[in-house]
Amino acid sequence: MEQLIRFNNDYNCIAQKNVLKALMETADEAYPGYGTDLWCEKASGTIRALCKAPEAAIHFLPGATQANFIVIASAISPVENVICADTGHIFCHEAASVEKTGHKVTALPARDGKITSEQVEEAAKAYYDSPQDFLTIPKLLYISFPTEYGTIYTKDELTAIKEVCRKYGMYLFVDGARLGYGLASPKCDLTLEDLARLTDVFYIGGTKCGAMFGEAVVITNDTLKKNFRIYMKQNGAVLAKGWLMGLQFETLLKDGTYLAIAKQADEYALRLQDVFKKKSIPLYVESPTNQQFVLLTDDQMDALKDRFVFEIEGRADEDHTLVRFCTSWSTKESEMDALVRAIETL
Amino acid sequence: MEQLIRFNNDYNCIAQKNVLKALMETADEAYPGYGTDLWCEKASGTIRALCKAPEAAIHFLPGATQANFIVIASAISPVENVICADTGHIFCHEAASVEKTGHKVTALPARDGKITSEQVEEAAKAYYDSPQDFLTIPKLLYISFPTEYGTIYTKDELTAIKEVCRKYGMYLFVDGARLGYGLASPKCDLTLEDLARLTDVFYIGGTKCGAMFGEAVVITNDTLKKNFRIYMKQNGAVLAKGWLMGLQFETLLKDGTYLAIAKQADEYALRLQDVFKKKSIPLYVESPTNQQFVLLTDDQMDALKDRFVFEIEGRADEDHTLVRFCTSWSTKESEMDALVRAIETL
Amino acid sequence: MEQLIRFNNDYNCIAQKNVLKALMETADEAYPGYGTDLWCEKASGTIRALCKAPEAAIHFLPGATQANFIVIASAISPVENVICADTGHIFCHEAASVEKTGHKVTALPARDGKITSEQVEEAAKAYYDSPQDFLTIPKLLYISFPTEYGTIYTKDELTAIKEVCRKYGMYLFVDGARLGYGLASPKCDLTLEDLARLTDVFYIGGTKCGAMFGEAVVITNDTLKKNFRIYMKQNGAVLAKGWLMGLQFETLLKDGTYLAIAKQADEYALRLQDVFKKKSIPLYVESPTNQQFVLLTDDQMDALKDRFVFEIEGRADEDHTLVRFCTSWSTKESEMDALVRAIETL
Amino acid sequence: MEQLIRFNNDYNCIAQKNVLKALMETADEAYPGYGTDLWCEKASGTIRALCKAPEAAIHFLPGATQANFIVIASAISPVENVICADTGHIFCHEAASVEKTGHKVTALPARDGKITSEQVEEAAKAYYDSPQDFLTIPKLLYISFPTEYGTIYTKDELTAIKEVCRKYGMYLFVDGARLGYGLASPKCDLTLEDLARLTDVFYIGGTKCGAMFGEAVVITNDTLKKNFRIYMKQNGAVLAKGWLMGLQFETLLKDGTYLAIAKQADEYALRLQDVFKKKSIPLYVESPTNQQFVLLTDDQMDALKDRFVFEIEGRADEDHTLVRFCTSWSTKESEMDALVRAIETL
Repeated sequence: MEQLIRFNNDYNCIAQKNVLKALMETADEAYPGYGTDLWCEKASGTIRALCKAPEAAIHFLPGATQANFIVIASAISPVENVICADTGHIFCHEAASVEKTGHKVTALPARDGKITSEQVEEAAKAYYDSPQDFLTIPKLLYISFPTEYGTIYTKDELTAIKEVCRKYGMYLFVDGARLGYGLASPKCDLTLEDLARLTDVFYIGGTKCGAMFGEAVVITNDTLKKNFRIYMKQNGAVLAKGWLMGLQFETLLKDGTYLAIAKQADEYALRLQDVFKKKSIPLYVESPTNQQFVLLTDDQMDALKDRFVFEIEGRADEDHTLVRFCTSWSTKESEMDALVRAIETL
Repeated sequence: MEQLIRFNNDYNCIAQKNVLKALMETADEAYPGYGTDLWCEKASGTIRALCKAPEAAIHFLPGATQANFIVIASAISPVENVICADTGHIFCHEAASVEKTGHKVTALPARDGKITSEQVEEAAKAYYDSPQDFLTIPKLLYISFPTEYGTIYTKDELTAIKEVCRKYGMYLFVDGARLGYGLASPKCDLTLEDLARLTDVFYIGGTKCGAMFGEAVVITNDTLKKNFRIYMKQNGAVLAKGWLMGLQFETLLKDGTYLAIAKQADEYALRLQDVFKKKSIPLYVESPTNQQFVLLTDDQMDALKDRFVFEIEGRADEDHTLVRFCTSWSTKESEMDALVRAIETL
Repeated sequence: MEQLIRFNNDYNCIAQKNVLKALMETADEAYPGYGTDLWCEKASGTIRALCKAPEAAIHFLPGATQANFIVIASAISPVENVICADTGHIFCHEAASVEKTGHKVTALPARDGKITSEQVEEAAKAYYDSPQDFLTIPKLLYISFPTEYGTIYTKDELTAIKEVCRKYGMYLFVDGARLGYGLASPKCDLTLEDLARLTDVFYIGGTKCGAMFGEAVVITNDTLKKNFRIYMKQNGAVLAKGWLMGLQFETLLKDGTYLAIAKQADEYALRLQDVFKKKSIPLYVESPTNQQFVLLTDDQMDALKDRFVFEIEGRADEDHTLVRFCTSWSTKESEMDALVRAIETL
Repeated sequence: MEQLIRFNNDYNCIAQKNVLKALMETADEAYPGYGTDLWCEKASGTIRALCKAPEAAIHFLPGATQANFIVIASAISPVENVICADTGHIFCHEAASVEKTGHKVTALPARDGKITSEQVEEAAKAYYDSPQDFLTIPKLLYISFPTEYGTIYTKDELTAIKEVCRKYGMYLFVDGARLGYGLASPKCDLTLEDLARLTDVFYIGGTKCGAMFGEAVVITNDTLKKNFRIYMKQNGAVLAKGWLMGLQFETLLKDGTYLAIAKQADEYALRLQDVFKKKSIPLYVESPTNQQFVLLTDDQMDALKDRFVFEIEGRADEDHTLVRFCTSWSTKESEMDALVRAIETL
């Protein structure tokens, strides 16, 4: 049987080849545990330099769900809550991990995965104009970059959102599980430096962007730096062999590999988008990054599913299903060619 | 500068060479995510076979702290509590991760890291003979095998403990973060099969026993199997690239590598123990596994610390410090020779 | 200065006169603590008889927020969640007390404070047709009777809702903080017996229905009875002088006082509704119970606010404010007359 | 049958007569809810004056378990823990309510219910001299005054304890559920003013000291004042008819009734202690307040139990049972006489 070609996600291969090479080259070395090693130190330095944030605290966590709920749990008190988009990963895909830590999550209706500064202002104002003892306090805004629908915020949009947060004393936390694909997009006018400057805390996703696993949390707000390591430990996010993450991030970030491989995936995704448009297959959302959401007919689904794996999001209407095609740092040109041809001949 | 030789723990090298080889060989493969792959299936089958527990549920979690608090949080209700040794890892080293999930942990005074069935009986009886609404219910007993001091329970001891648990309707959970070193010890009369039979849930440690990371949780009690995956997700323990753990466990377990490398480390540890005895350096506890605790004078510490890394546990008395030497699957014979010689010439 | 007349809520006087009398008559008696007394036993018997539920477990809790989050926390596991109306008290007015216990609350859009069996079915089906590890399990439906807008469910509606819950294995929990005003309404076709039969757990509100304080939780589902007292204690809801609640409920329920005083308040409310209609003051919702929500102009507000206290819910549109007038067991006829006259002369 | 005379606790009668009188006198009044009334304001003023703490925040909570876990949950972060005596009420009698909020409680071995500043220093120093990421931070010291064994701290002792807390940045929280009996003891050299000065937060117990229910929390540390009302609401401790507590505390405190009735109970208790000594019935602890713990033989128990209710704490040795006799503000002289005679004729 011919092997299926995977376009269902961006975490279906072990790691980018430089990462694997680095692992092999250090296979005989012995390191101190729990992230107190030289690789974590080196990667932290590289990240601070890229972010132009020499005072930032950098922490490496194995997974993105961990990063999300631990950042939130460490940042807000039991009587404070989180605002996010109703398509936000913490609201829809993480088994109520934030509520598990005791916090209400208030979801605002998203458009193409994004929310606006006006929406945030309205939600914040509703509380802060007349605080009530029977309400918890909106204290942290969570957004994803890129969003769960592959869209990205512009620098103007993010600046306006940050301004609202600052006005109301709220933290801005950016989930960057797919950060590379966002920053590398031709439509993106934001840089790592902008993110560090405009957020209180964000993370640089490794798991979906070329690493075996690992997310690099960047904390620029001093208040949020306090005791973060204990929060990590308490929630099981201190990896014994922490240097594995330092090593991977250093490898990916020191020479631009991180953005280069994401850029390739984005280009593939936009090539896909072009083909969908040419074939008049409706885009569900205009995404400038590696996730492409389209509406397929049953016939189209049938024609593709024997050779390609893609993610089925749900029935959209009587005739269409919403599906996601996801390119990856690991997508090969030959795989792209095969998929493009298959779509062209639908 | 000469490199320091690490005897401070058993998780300071990436992974046993077979594991690395398996990783490299599959570097080009693409897999479904979240542990729904063939490697996890294969490793689960291997574990069930080794445990002679065809109905056991097997789950792979990245770390041991996660395994501990997630198993506990999934097993007991908010009004139930945990009993453990006062040297237990969950009581002393995991930043109150179990209390964080809302449960009281009641610690019994351990001897050499172990507690007895009589102690457990006494604690259980105190509650169950006269349950009170102002008390929570002892429902789960947590023990470590080997213990935090390297000691191990005999089959008789574990059977007696299980009997008490059964009598009072309590779950028995064995933390096997260093399971290999326990099972491979010449003093051990327990097998994986015994553990599966005598416990309700236990785990096979990977992180400290040759894997890059990963713990394989084995649930034999049907009640505890329910919704375990959601507990994992909610607490951030579902790794995106789950097959990485399946692959590692399959590699270590399919051909006996897991026990073989632990046996080597145990032999090294016992060789160390012999040397300490010969030098009349007092053992803090008689450990048959890879952790050796001894009391060193300041002079002895000074003589060793320039070439070897070992773990300082704390000041024992005016003249002695309690330290731990930990051999590992990664310890090389040359390193052992160097350490033995250094001790002999103290 | 003339005293303001309070129509802002139904808990602004100490207690109905029979209750105070009973308190005074027992002032010299001594009782065992924590609800283990004869009054609690007697009131429990009375409630079981009224509910025709001889096996029901009855518990007295000081307040309604406690009743809500403790019932929920005791009924569902950490990976299960709650469905309710988006106007539900637990969603809007209790400072995230349910999320504090670790559970997500999913709100369905309510109409006049109510949700339909179809909505519940849709929400349940969405999960149960394709359960996912990254979602928590809808396990308990919370509704209020009467709702936060004074409306009530019919027997048919509640039966249909119960049927959906049964189909999906979900618990049905009815918040009866204002139960008396619901059951006493001329539009109500439900009885205590129906509630006991159609729900898994509900409570009979005391605080807002004539008692000084106290809510009587009635648990008919055996699974939910387990360890409930420990949940109460753990969350600070076991009152030392528990007999105070038994005494109050026995006094109110043994001879029909509970419903009689609620009926009076409902009649007052409907008289108010008539006057609003006559004056063409728009009702926000058609409520058959003691809470009446209307839209007032600024002039109307000004004309009333110097003599009456009513609750301002918020600005409705450019010209109107949404306000609540709440009659109570303690409302006097003279107060009603004064308010009616004032409205008539607006 | 002759009524049993209750010496089992100090909360077996409704309320001191002035309190009942005040309730009756206000029975026709209507008040705003949730403690925003004049009685709460008045009582707060009285408490601030008695404490000579004009800036103190005063909050009224229905019960002592609530006061304990809510104060603690509001004061410390998820990675901070509580130190207390191993006889402390939060450690032994409150169904793990503090752990339920996610915090570890570390118990120090008490002597006669008390712990020393040296013990606290040792525990704090152990952490603060070498903080570790795998430990939570000792941040709040909980002590009871009087203790669970009726003993009290002297001003010197409390000052020394406060000094240690200040040194390590820890909060000092005094559980005053029986505060009246402590302050009124002839052996007590502390005043309300001292407590307000030496603690960060404490409470004045009402439930056990003459009120129907209610505890007045006094917060002097500004940091701990923040958002306290939301914590109360979130945990179900905002009573709808909050003025009931203001009224009771004002009644008890404005004219010295609170201390006067406690003094009477203490005198009764010391009279009891004298009789026990005369009869050579061993005291378990020398308590200067209303709880007296003695060791009775089976014959003595039998002789007393038909006419008196007292609390059985547990078997002490082969021949003795530890029991508690508790006098109360509600104890009548005739009841005392009867008990004294009964003991004398043992």
